[in-house]
Amino acid sequence: MNISANIEKTGLTKEQIEAYRPAVSDALDRLWSGNEPMTGWVTLPVNRNQEELNTIQEIADIIKDEAELLVVIGIGGSYMGAKAAIEALPKDASGIEVRFLGNNLCTDYYWETLQEIKEKNTILCVISKSGNTMEVRTAFEVVKPIMVEKYGSVAEASKRILAITDEETGTLRAEVSEYGYSSLVVPSDVGGRYSIGTPVGLLPMAVSGIDIIAFLDGARECANDAGWDHDLADYAIARHLLEKEGKSVEVFGLCHSRLFYLGEWMKQLFGESEGKEGKGLMPTSLTYSTDLHSMGQYLQEGRQIFTETLMVVDEPSVSIEIPGGPQKGKTVADINNAMIGGVISAHRQAGIPITELHIQKLDTRTFGQLIYYLETTCAITAMLNGVDPFNQPGVEAYKKEMHRLLD
Amino acid sequence: MNISANIEKTGLTKEQIEAYRPAVSDALDRLWSGNEPMTGWVTLPVNRNQEELNTIQEIADIIKDEAELLVVIGIGGSYMGAKAAIEALPKDASGIEVRFLGNNLCTDYYWETLQEIKEKNTILCVISKSGNTMEVRTAFEVVKPIMVEKYGSVAEASKRILAITDEETGTLRAEVSEYGYSSLVVPSDVGGRYSIGTPVGLLPMAVSGIDIIAFLDGARECANDAGWDHDLADYAIARHLLEKEGKSVEVFGLCHSRLFYLGEWMKQLFGESEGKEGKGLMPTSLTYSTDLHSMGQYLQEGRQIFTETLMVVDEPSVSIEIPGGPQKGKTVADINNAMIGGVISAHRQAGIPITELHIQKLDTRTFGQLIYYLETTCAITAMLNGVDPFNQPGVEAYKKEMHRLLD
Repeated sequence: MNISANIEKTGLTKEQIEAYRPAVSDALDRLWSGNEPMTGWVTLPVNRNQEELNTIQEIADIIKDEAELLVVIGIGGSYMGAKAAIEALPKDASGIEVRFLGNNLCTDYYWETLQEIKEKNTILCVISKSGNTMEVRTAFEVVKPIMVEKYGSVAEASKRILAITDEETGTLRAEVSEYGYSSLVVPSDVGGRYSIGTPVGLLPMAVSGIDIIAFLDGARECANDAGWDHDLADYAIARHLLEKEGKSVEVFGLCHSRLFYLGEWMKQLFGESEGKEGKGLMPTSLTYSTDLHSMGQYLQEGRQIFTETLMVVDEPSVSIEIPGGPQKGKTVADINNAMIGGVISAHRQAGIPITELHIQKLDTRTFGQLIYYLETTCAITAMLNGVDPFNQPGVEAYKKEMHRLLD
Repeated sequence: MNISANIEKTGLTKEQIEAYRPAVSDALDRLWSGNEPMTGWVTLPVNRNQEELNTIQEIADIIKDEAELLVVIGIGGSYMGAKAAIEALPKDASGIEVRFLGNNLCTDYYWETLQEIKEKNTILCVISKSGNTMEVRTAFEVVKPIMVEKYGSVAEASKRILAITDEETGTLRAEVSEYGYSSLVVPSDVGGRYSIGTPVGLLPMAVSGIDIIAFLDGARECANDAGWDHDLADYAIARHLLEKEGKSVEVFGLCHSRLFYLGEWMKQLFGESEGKEGKGLMPTSLTYSTDLHSMGQYLQEGRQIFTETLMVVDEPSVSIEIPGGPQKGKTVADINNAMIGGVISAHRQAGIPITELHIQKLDTRTFGQLIYYLETTCAITAMLNGVDPFNQPGVEAYKKEMHRLLD
């Protein structure tokens, strides 16, 4: 495993942590039992569907050969995971540009994307379990006629549309039947925020040039390694206890700028899994050292309502030496490490509980480990908090009001 | 004024707000008195230094003519303001690419930027009051020899370096004297987070093709309009009262994706001005509707520790109609407006206090108004909270520890 959590600087004692080990063991048993709803993601990297993986690779190869641009129409769990991976990971030269749409309702952004679609040889990939998500449906309806105009007919446009949706039901599956789009399946036992290891995440990643088998290998390594005695259990317990002790926010301090969208993905994972019944640490992310020059003052001397989880990449992918000035001979990574050490000391002096989450290096296999590690941590903390990690009863509230306003 | 705040949905009463009007009036008097330290930004858009503005425009014109890329080396207040403007605003065709460096210590990001410098005709702009900020110094030392190699000599490279720094003191000013860099001045009575209207923000904005006179005109309109009876005072008072009533986080809900970096700039403005002595709302930002599909569950049903400020752009810059499906004939902006209405209803049902901050349109003059509006709001709330809006005693803590580790 290239991932490790260190909770020594949280101020929690060994005894406090140990007391929760049986509860974590129970939680892991439940996750692996096969009897809990929406836990399909747990065994996915271990019991792979090789046939489906072959299909994903084949479709990705065709797209990379035939197109310059893949426009993925998706939002939430149908967007964040692939986006996080594409921003963080190395890609081989065969990969093409992947751009997202339907992840917002911003006309300026629409406009730019529509220009790109008009200019570049484009494939559309629409991702939605039902096909009814308002943002996704809006984007799809706007883009479809542009594809028809560009490629000459509905039939030709339809050849360039791939749908990732429910196997049987929903508007989008019905359109697949009617127009003959290619399609892949969103598994019914995996929720959106846990779906990066399904076609939802894997297809866009593969098209961008990411080695999805290495990603799944990493996830499997973490799955096989996970157990009650693993340090991810420590982290999960610490999160539960820190909230119990009065913290209400978790700051993810991302110490590498390529992790920015991972932070966005983590906000959905943790916020949507744990934020219910008036409970859960409110997740927020900062990128260091950038944000030490904006939020540093607040962290040091503002309201001490938060715990901090530092996401540290230990080995830089490239070495850059400083050729002059007071730090001559050191590398940029040396300065970054000193910055991280400085943050830890200063924040400990302010009494902030700190978890260090070390990522040995930012490669695809390690990223696969990390995703699975975080998903498992999150599920365990939610279960310790007594909430269901896999539902999201509150997300319908604004949608209901929005539909009322549109009708 | 194209900016207005509506605090009707905060749950605060008129009486509660009215009670603070004399205190706001006092705060505004202090800001405008000329006797308070670091309040130079207050009168800057009104008492313009026309000579300096001419110089900024001339330098920007030369850079745009001669270079393909401006690399701005700066962090915090020497980065955020210009970045927020460049991401949000329309630019004329004469503008060139502006890229930032020294805003992080990420080797991957360095690597990409160094490749760009090698490939493109580049001007460097180093922004630092002292010249000693570690991130900025590191980036400058790494880039200098690349410029020397590329342009053949120290003298030729120095012609392509512009420093924005203290008028008299500091390492960077000394280098200006030694190597003959062009230079502009960081005023001594304006702090970093309030410096967007000084050469720090204006020069990069002008090079990117933004009309900086329109920006300053907007700021002046807001300055001339500000008074105790203005609705920005309502917003400032509401922020103070909501914290007093037990809220500890302010969520800036950005309803336009081009406002993302404005949200980052706001986090520095509010967090660094107010986060001291264990006080201040912790600022965080979300982009809607994207983040309703990640943090929506938490907002609706998680810990109710936050107040929400919706940043709404009323007029879209372009109209995009939906040609099919259930919303046929509506525009993307219609759906966005329904989304905003849906959020307001759903969040009010959850008891979240909401301020609506309306921005009539996202043009440069309005952006100038908005910046000044937010700066004034922030200064007033900080003064109501009894803290100094213009110092940042806590930001040195991690730097001290970092330097200790490097020595």
